Amino acid sequence: MMINLKPGERIDDLQRNNLQIIQDPDRFCFGMDAVLLSGFVSLKNTRQNNAKEKSVKLLDMCTGTGIIPILLTAKMAIEEGFCLEIQPDSADMARRSVQLNNLDNVLRVDLGDVKEASHIYGKARFDLVTCNPPYMANTHGLKNPTDAKAIARHEVLCSLEDVISQASLTLKPQGRFCMVHRPQRLAEIFEVLQKYRLEPKRMQLVYPYVDREPNMVLIEAVRGGKRGMIVEKPIIVYESPNKYTDEIYQIYGY
Amino acid sequence: MMINLKPGERIDDLQRNNLQIIQDPDRFCFGMDAVLLSGFVSLKNTRQNNAKEKSVKLLDMCTGTGIIPILLTAKMAIEEGFCLEIQPDSADMARRSVQLNNLDNVLRVDLGDVKEASHIYGKARFDLVTCNPPYMANTHGLKNPTDAKAIARHEVLCSLEDVISQASLTLKPQGRFCMVHRPQRLAEIFEVLQKYRLEPKRMQLVYPYVDREPNMVLIEAVRGGKRGMIVEKPIIVYESPNKYTDEIYQIYGY
Repeated sequence: MMINLKPGERIDDLQRNNLQIIQDPDRFCFGMDAVLLSGFVSLKNTRQNNAKEKSVKLLDMCTGTGIIPILLTAKMAIEEGFCLEIQPDSADMARRSVQLNNLDNVLRVDLGDVKEASHIYGKARFDLVTCNPPYMANTHGLKNPTDAKAIARHEVLCSLEDVISQASLTLKPQGRFCMVHRPQRLAEIFEVLQKYRLEPKRMQLVYPYVDREPNMVLIEAVRGGKRGMIVEKPIIVYESPNKYTDEIYQIYGY
Repeated sequence: MMINLKPGERIDDLQRNNLQIIQDPDRFCFGMDAVLLSGFVSLKNTRQNNAKEKSVKLLDMCTGTGIIPILLTAKMAIEEGFCLEIQPDSADMARRSVQLNNLDNVLRVDLGDVKEASHIYGKARFDLVTCNPPYMANTHGLKNPTDAKAIARHEVLCSLEDVISQASLTLKPQGRFCMVHRPQRLAEIFEVLQKYRLEPKRMQLVYPYVDREPNMVLIEAVRGGKRGMIVEKPIIVYESPNKYTDEIYQIYGY
């Protein structure tokens, strides 16, 4: 398939099912966060799993280049997948990546505001909502808050509570919300999840080295889920400088 | 000092400052939980630290054999330390261990109910409250719920909410609560902490092996603390079967 690239854009190989993605290094490239989140997503022990035929309805909020839903197509059957992005240039790139991978019949990219998700898609529609949201609550001091990277990293256009409340509204009962975020905000994340009846059920911490503080946390919460959660084994990223652990190579699909 | 031992009791060396403890293997012996919790406790960045002369007022709830406050005497100046225990036999053992270590002028063991802590000691009195509470919420199915081990492990006589609410009441503003618990209950722990205005500020997960799920979580919460927390580097217990990691040897003080 022929896809037009705009100035500054490039096509990267995702090392999985021949998937590719269009990115622009001057805007925002996907990070390990997105790859680890798509690896973390699991539908085990869900009703989906019992009814094996059934494929999931998916919403990815703050989709950026569409990296998470594109990677998810390699690991699960998606009945309908929506990728919501507020920045027109990113949404356009995501749309062309969907075409490039011949995923038009599975994924649709919508330009829109996370805060409007339940209006756009309707309530209680999805089995799975994913999000790699902006991590930084602090927006003051930003030199250029309309810059694409600033919007992707800081809560300029949507807050943690916007993301979580909309996840809760758009998920079916017992539907799953999977998010990657910073460990520093864990207490707040748990509080807001519980405020919106999303019970934390699974968590995994990502430590850059075995003797360092974690810099990412992966969380799965279930709408209306029961009490009790699993903390997974740690993900350790580097064995030594520039050498990934075997686990990371596996997640990256090499 | 001559201390009477009762049948079944023994004296164990704590490998630190010549401290010793009386235990009865048929009742309950302290575990790695208590040692890791006393290692986790820190007064860094507190007002105590700024005013270096000042020593802390400490309450240890569910003290059992008194292991945690006895270990803490080796790492901080304690102005007054109270060890609260509801089981008479354990309280008696703890009292004799305090005598054995010549700590009568620092630690006092009280026989009493955690649920009454704020009545016993008064409100907003302590700089530091520690607790290694019963982990298991489930008490049905217990063959003998009055058994000493059952009381130490299951929420027969006090619940997580009892422990946390009393910690909040007895702590000064900005005072610290340090607890060890099971990761499975993390969501509930965070919720109850925040309900009682104890803000989670520091957390550390204890993984038996680098590729296993954690089986303990260490948490520090500050009464009236601001948002934002640190997740510490992981504690990995075993390098290989029967061989502790260097970190564990360090914490144990070998």
